Amino acid sequence: MPKPFVSELVAGSAVDAVFLLAERNMAHKKDGNPFLTVTLADRTGQVKGVVWDQVERIAAAVTEGDFVHVRAQVGEYRGGLQMVVKDMLRVPADQVDPADFLPTTSRDVGKMFDRLREMTGRMQNPHLKRLFEVFWADDEFVAAYTRAPAAKMMHHAYIGGLLEHTLSMAVLAGMVAGHYSGVDRDLLLAGVILHDVGKVRELEYARRIDYTDEGRLLSHIIIGLSMLDEKLGQVPDFPPVQAQLLKHMIVSHHGSRAFGSPEPPKTIEAVLLNHIDEMDSRVNSIREYVAKDPSDGSWTPYHRLLERHFYKGPGPDTGND
Amino acid sequence: MPKPFVSELVAGSAVDAVFLLAERNMAHKKDGNPFLTVTLADRTGQVKGVVWDQVERIAAAVTEGDFVHVRAQVGEYRGGLQMVVKDMLRVPADQVDPADFLPTTSRDVGKMFDRLREMTGRMQNPHLKRLFEVFWADDEFVAAYTRAPAAKMMHHAYIGGLLEHTLSMAVLAGMVAGHYSGVDRDLLLAGVILHDVGKVRELEYARRIDYTDEGRLLSHIIIGLSMLDEKLGQVPDFPPVQAQLLKHMIVSHHGSRAFGSPEPPKTIEAVLLNHIDEMDSRVNSIREYVAKDPSDGSWTPYHRLLERHFYKGPGPDTGND
Amino acid sequence: MPKPFVSELVAGSAVDAVFLLAERNMAHKKDGNPFLTVTLADRTGQVKGVVWDQVERIAAAVTEGDFVHVRAQVGEYRGGLQMVVKDMLRVPADQVDPADFLPTTSRDVGKMFDRLREMTGRMQNPHLKRLFEVFWADDEFVAAYTRAPAAKMMHHAYIGGLLEHTLSMAVLAGMVAGHYSGVDRDLLLAGVILHDVGKVRELEYARRIDYTDEGRLLSHIIIGLSMLDEKLGQVPDFPPVQAQLLKHMIVSHHGSRAFGSPEPPKTIEAVLLNHIDEMDSRVNSIREYVAKDPSDGSWTPYHRLLERHFYKGPGPDTGND
Amino acid sequence: MPKPFVSELVAGSAVDAVFLLAERNMAHKKDGNPFLTVTLADRTGQVKGVVWDQVERIAAAVTEGDFVHVRAQVGEYRGGLQMVVKDMLRVPADQVDPADFLPTTSRDVGKMFDRLREMTGRMQNPHLKRLFEVFWADDEFVAAYTRAPAAKMMHHAYIGGLLEHTLSMAVLAGMVAGHYSGVDRDLLLAGVILHDVGKVRELEYARRIDYTDEGRLLSHIIIGLSMLDEKLGQVPDFPPVQAQLLKHMIVSHHGSRAFGSPEPPKTIEAVLLNHIDEMDSRVNSIREYVAKDPSDGSWTPYHRLLERHFYKGPGPDTGND
Amino acid sequence: MPKPFVSELVAGSAVDAVFLLAERNMAHKKDGNPFLTVTLADRTGQVKGVVWDQVERIAAAVTEGDFVHVRAQVGEYRGGLQMVVKDMLRVPADQVDPADFLPTTSRDVGKMFDRLREMTGRMQNPHLKRLFEVFWADDEFVAAYTRAPAAKMMHHAYIGGLLEHTLSMAVLAGMVAGHYSGVDRDLLLAGVILHDVGKVRELEYARRIDYTDEGRLLSHIIIGLSMLDEKLGQVPDFPPVQAQLLKHMIVSHHGSRAFGSPEPPKTIEAVLLNHIDEMDSRVNSIREYVAKDPSDGSWTPYHRLLERHFYKGPGPDTGND
Amino acid sequence: MPKPFVSELVAGSAVDAVFLLAERNMAHKKDGNPFLTVTLADRTGQVKGVVWDQVERIAAAVTEGDFVHVRAQVGEYRGGLQMVVKDMLRVPADQVDPADFLPTTSRDVGKMFDRLREMTGRMQNPHLKRLFEVFWADDEFVAAYTRAPAAKMMHHAYIGGLLEHTLSMAVLAGMVAGHYSGVDRDLLLAGVILHDVGKVRELEYARRIDYTDEGRLLSHIIIGLSMLDEKLGQVPDFPPVQAQLLKHMIVSHHGSRAFGSPEPPKTIEAVLLNHIDEMDSRVNSIREYVAKDPSDGSWTPYHRLLERHFYKGPGPDTGND
Repeated sequence: MPKPFVSELVAGSAVDAVFLLAERNMAHKKDGNPFLTVTLADRTGQVKGVVWDQVERIAAAVTEGDFVHVRAQVGEYRGGLQMVVKDMLRVPADQVDPADFLPTTSRDVGKMFDRLREMTGRMQNPHLKRLFEVFWADDEFVAAYTRAPAAKMMHHAYIGGLLEHTLSMAVLAGMVAGHYSGVDRDLLLAGVILHDVGKVRELEYARRIDYTDEGRLLSHIIIGLSMLDEKLGQVPDFPPVQAQLLKHMIVSHHGSRAFGSPEPPKTIEAVLLNHIDEMDSRVNSIREYVAKDPSDGSWTPYHRLLERHFYKGPGPDTGND
Repeated sequence: MPKPFVSELVAGSAVDAVFLLAERNMAHKKDGNPFLTVTLADRTGQVKGVVWDQVERIAAAVTEGDFVHVRAQVGEYRGGLQMVVKDMLRVPADQVDPADFLPTTSRDVGKMFDRLREMTGRMQNPHLKRLFEVFWADDEFVAAYTRAPAAKMMHHAYIGGLLEHTLSMAVLAGMVAGHYSGVDRDLLLAGVILHDVGKVRELEYARRIDYTDEGRLLSHIIIGLSMLDEKLGQVPDFPPVQAQLLKHMIVSHHGSRAFGSPEPPKTIEAVLLNHIDEMDSRVNSIREYVAKDPSDGSWTPYHRLLERHFYKGPGPDTGND
Repeated sequence: MPKPFVSELVAGSAVDAVFLLAERNMAHKKDGNPFLTVTLADRTGQVKGVVWDQVERIAAAVTEGDFVHVRAQVGEYRGGLQMVVKDMLRVPADQVDPADFLPTTSRDVGKMFDRLREMTGRMQNPHLKRLFEVFWADDEFVAAYTRAPAAKMMHHAYIGGLLEHTLSMAVLAGMVAGHYSGVDRDLLLAGVILHDVGKVRELEYARRIDYTDEGRLLSHIIIGLSMLDEKLGQVPDFPPVQAQLLKHMIVSHHGSRAFGSPEPPKTIEAVLLNHIDEMDSRVNSIREYVAKDPSDGSWTPYHRLLERHFYKGPGPDTGND
Repeated sequence: MPKPFVSELVAGSAVDAVFLLAERNMAHKKDGNPFLTVTLADRTGQVKGVVWDQVERIAAAVTEGDFVHVRAQVGEYRGGLQMVVKDMLRVPADQVDPADFLPTTSRDVGKMFDRLREMTGRMQNPHLKRLFEVFWADDEFVAAYTRAPAAKMMHHAYIGGLLEHTLSMAVLAGMVAGHYSGVDRDLLLAGVILHDVGKVRELEYARRIDYTDEGRLLSHIIIGLSMLDEKLGQVPDFPPVQAQLLKHMIVSHHGSRAFGSPEPPKTIEAVLLNHIDEMDSRVNSIREYVAKDPSDGSWTPYHRLLERHFYKGPGPDTGND
Repeated sequence: MPKPFVSELVAGSAVDAVFLLAERNMAHKKDGNPFLTVTLADRTGQVKGVVWDQVERIAAAVTEGDFVHVRAQVGEYRGGLQMVVKDMLRVPADQVDPADFLPTTSRDVGKMFDRLREMTGRMQNPHLKRLFEVFWADDEFVAAYTRAPAAKMMHHAYIGGLLEHTLSMAVLAGMVAGHYSGVDRDLLLAGVILHDVGKVRELEYARRIDYTDEGRLLSHIIIGLSMLDEKLGQVPDFPPVQAQLLKHMIVSHHGSRAFGSPEPPKTIEAVLLNHIDEMDSRVNSIREYVAKDPSDGSWTPYHRLLERHFYKGPGPDTGND
Repeated sequence: MPKPFVSELVAGSAVDAVFLLAERNMAHKKDGNPFLTVTLADRTGQVKGVVWDQVERIAAAVTEGDFVHVRAQVGEYRGGLQMVVKDMLRVPADQVDPADFLPTTSRDVGKMFDRLREMTGRMQNPHLKRLFEVFWADDEFVAAYTRAPAAKMMHHAYIGGLLEHTLSMAVLAGMVAGHYSGVDRDLLLAGVILHDVGKVRELEYARRIDYTDEGRLLSHIIIGLSMLDEKLGQVPDFPPVQAQLLKHMIVSHHGSRAFGSPEPPKTIEAVLLNHIDEMDSRVNSIREYVAKDPSDGSWTPYHRLLERHFYKGPGPDTGND
């Protein structure tokens, strides 16, 4: 039986399902008795809840970050929904489907990866082609690469987002390499596929999407270069100059020092990679922002990072009538 | 007989051809007699020259900016070429081919314009399609639009450069509109074709490429909007919202206030226009910079505006051997 | 009978008057019965309210943005006033005086406009004088121009604010034009009067002050230029150079690209316009900020945009005594 | 009997002690009767409270900023502690120990000052040595100098913080002056001791740490220079060049105009002062931020001003397991 | 007999006059004999010269910065003028009129100062009025204040420039104080007159305009405050708050930290002072730039600091004809 | 016989020694015969020269960047020295002492390295101690590490500069680690020694100091991390968390993204490393700038990068006397 999602809850119904225990706070009633306020979450959202009974037992058995089996009644409080929890039990992580608890790409991950592998399989440059054979032969890497999000918040911030973003860029790279003469198509494609590869270790995405210690200390650019170095060691006779040009694309793909690249793009392929990355990230980021906006006017709320409202189309007539 | 170009001159030869008189200075020999030092130019470069005889007559007859018919002997001075000019006569502008004196696109202008017109002819949106019929029916406009450069110095800074830049962007826009769902292809294409239309009046490009008074006072964004307003007045029933969205693309195509756009892009089409414009301008600008670099190392000289050297490919072995 | 204003309400009194329904939220009591929390507003401020009875009927009859006739008792809740609403009825917009619901200039609009018209009537330059005759003959324009605010929030953000700001600048412009020799007084005055003219369409100010779609897509600079273009078309033989210089003043009046002007001021009149505008906006903005601060110390709260506290005068003795 | 501190309060106990009345608001119960909500504070934190009885009498007797003797019962409300206040009486400021109400250095102020005085006593330069004799002979100055905090919030933001910061820098200055040849050790030390001297008047720190009117109007750099000028007037024959170099160190110690120094450091001693100041301030600021973080993960919360999380050491295993 | 100025020299004439020896370099002819190349200057410009004879004697007698009596023949060399110097003798500084060698205001210094003194004489505030009596009674100060330039290069960079700039601002301040209600006219005027008073010591202007050591180490803001402190000490009972407000105007008159003010303007008078200062400096700076431009097109050369060309009026017809 | 250095040449003497041929240009006399103008260099400076005889033979035998044995007569030309070259022969690089041709540290390289090795030998942390044993056992690395400069131009831009800079920082790090409690001394020292290790490959310093291709494409931060990765692979059981913290110090040592660090310092040791590096680089950079300034006033010329003049001490009396 599929899990009822937070976005589907209605006041008055009973719930018997698994959620992620996002927050848990002990409080006290006026009579001195304790109670628990909790926040329960899945990939569709969050709902507040309260535990009036068996507070000590439940508080001892579950902690923040646990998956919990909840039996509750859905009510309303201050204009929002509130679960009045009857019981709450810890559930081992291997008994839940993580896809229920983290936002996930709407595309077919298997097909996306097949398409990417097909692209590298058609490369003319034998060294680059061989390099990707080494990457794709590493099952642990492929599992992480096809599961990782592309970011914590900004764009493609969901399971499979890295692959979706990379494939979209790879398709664009193919178009652009055909449009401008003198572009090394294989090198550009290789740079696209590897530019964010460090994100598989920069981020954690088992139960929630957040930075790892390594990610905060080193950044995905540094981690990705180290991963590439390791794989390059397994490709005999990889030309040193080509290795430097490929690394340069990872190093410079943010476009400038101000955005975290120690060096700016200095080859035409690195310049193109930077532009394709910016365009694809920006388009995805704006679309998700617009899609998530529940308001019904012509404009989204102000986007603090991009410093503007986005236009959603003409709304009902307004103005100085 | 084709004109001998500055780039083809060799020491020891005689010259009998037309050049642009770029500079002219009167000087005096130790014996008190005057002489002229001149700079002669065409689209391939500049050469210094000196006039020893009939100085007063020649000085009175020609002025900077004139086309001049020159008879001279090519010599060497301080390691460079120097023309010793025997005679110099003013030539009316309508007797010279301006293409000899200004750098010009290497593409076929007629074919490029045909391709662009074909694109607008296939538009589904009847209002936009009609708008471009009005633009293309204006012969004076088409003559300027197909001749104008895209910039004074940065990119596509040559006769026909605006058209070359616009067509390249239009092709990219077609690809990108097919890649992302939900993009209004006709609107994007219209924005691409009109985004720099104000450059036909922002710049002058009769004998040299420079800003006009109007260009410096108003900028091509403002001029282009005024040109669009005028043509919109000739399209009956053009929907006001669509007109605003199209104008918004011109207004915002530089991407941010810091780059001269009063408003940043707020629709997906305006965002894409900005990215395509930046990519195409940057690629052209780097390629011209690399192409013009006569040095033979692995790197171009430092590019002051882009704040980096560009890599031209591995050179001879260097380093800490 | 004049409407009782929000700022005049006192606990314990009864109210029977029209307010703007700024917010309306449905909530539920512990017994499951619904109630409404509302925010009622007029130009003097806002007050919270609650509706306990006939909730469904009232909720169905009024929506946010409506003018509503309210019968209520004023009480206190959590240290603030709260209206306990007995009944609430929708009132058509044409039955209310908008000036009651939007902040309005304290100056006499008619007198201000007369003074401005007198100034343009005394212009020596026949073209500029004629241009303003065309503007002032457009009743719809004059109605909007004398009613528009100068901004949504920053300065002169009230009905009539644009006119008040413009007149203040015009007076300063007259002084400055007399102080510095060689300034074209009529041109400076014309630039002052037209610099923000696009705000009549950039903003809506019927019931609240906010941006219009056109305003967000194009900005008042672009809109103002288009309005000027239209009026210039009605002045025969307006000299093109003068038109460019006048447009340049609108284009550049924000002083730099960073503040939204595509070109910086390049004539002495444009430079002066920018300085006068900055001074008058800043003075008004600080004064309103200080005037609205209810605290009684020597300093206003921190002004986030201007990044400082403002000094209000010596307060009671403090310090390291 | 030592005062019970806020951080030591436990639910269920009775309190009979002095606190600072940080906030006081009048509210009304549903029955119309008034009550007071208060915030009581000392150097260890704040606690909310409520006064149900004798509200009018108490409200008339105490005002915000007063020290108040409180008799209360400690309870819980919404998961936090709440004092139910029985009575509250104003206490004159001279009857409390200010150190109970403001955070204070953990070092021994007397020993720190002795060490600093010992350093100036060993100076070789007779003029600088004499200058500090004049400073140290001013009892009022010494009292303030040894009591002042170094900042309102950023670093060493506690009583005695200025002295602690200055001494730490003085010790570092001694090391650095020995490390680099050609540094004027006495001048560097003098600059260190005087660089923040204006903070004794820029800040008030009698009951709370905040800026004074003079501090906000002039800044500690300007105030410190004026204080130095006054003392220099009491040292006969102080060499003018040396006075300028010493003043220059105060003027430039923030390193650049962007950080509030009218001139950047232009002597080696001023450069070193700036670096030592930045290092000591930064280290203290980070340490206090880490020390105050109650969370138990590997990272502090995001530090808005320094724009990063800080690493607190490896926590429990997380990540993509 | 008035001195012939550099700007008046013509080729072929003889010169017998005093100049400033701006540069002096020893060189050697092919035959091994030494010669001197020199640069001679006065307030109208510079001219190159050469000394072929008596080189050793002359070289020993004059040094850079000296006033020198020159006998020479004016010739041409490489298209410019060149003095062939027959003899050159050092002239004591007190035998020359410094006004011949430094650019000087075109206004009457005595009249300007009288007008300023008249303004302070009419002040209503007895403390401020008395303060200026103290300033004006200091003859040495008045001599420097009426002679100092306002800057080295940017604006009013000539003898008497500080006074000219200050008086212009004082007149504007009077207008503005009358325009806005609630401005303390005397305080604003006092701030205007004193805001740049530190320039009399920040700059040297005996033979050339340059920074003094004190100026580079402390800046005119700091020096001016110290000068004000000294004079305030001579006014009995000057109110401390007023002293702080006056100092605040000097401290903040550059408008922001980025421009060298440790604190931004926080009173209405300080805000106005900053705006008036910026406007007057900018207008003067642009006018001098335009006035010095010898070119005859519509535009000045690019102004590096202000990052634009300035428009000088419509030139001959150009463009895409 | 030691080589005569450029700085020691005097007019009239004969030279018979090896120089670096920095520049070589072919030119032609008026009679059509070719001659060579050359620039000859060693670590003390450059001198111009000319070759009148056997031009073709010499031109064919030597190229820019060669070491050349020169026989010449030293003369003067236009106020500078000029070598009239009789003969010039190419010399193999292995027959010259590179130290003659590149600026070199004035410290004893062997002693500096011994001192650094002694420091790592005293480390308490066995893993870090072992890591440095691996580094020091790599002879090729040590040779490069003790020879590399620390920069191309900014600071320590001479052979041995990296070692000198690193040792100076290591000594400071020891002091600072003792001053602040809770600092991991070994980790800080390890970070200091490795922070710039990538410079041994970022720069070339065989004949001149310049960037390598790898340096420009990747930057020394990236190269250094790769070098560290390789050595870490040779230390069994190096704790992963410690490896990340050490890498983080390299990653973040420039302090912020704007200066090329992908992540800012997030541990107290990384923060200290950044401060010590900035202080030592800045001090060395200023000192070299002051030391190279031949002028005799109180101030250096304007330092473009640091945007100020530096004070060199009181000069002769100047000013408004």
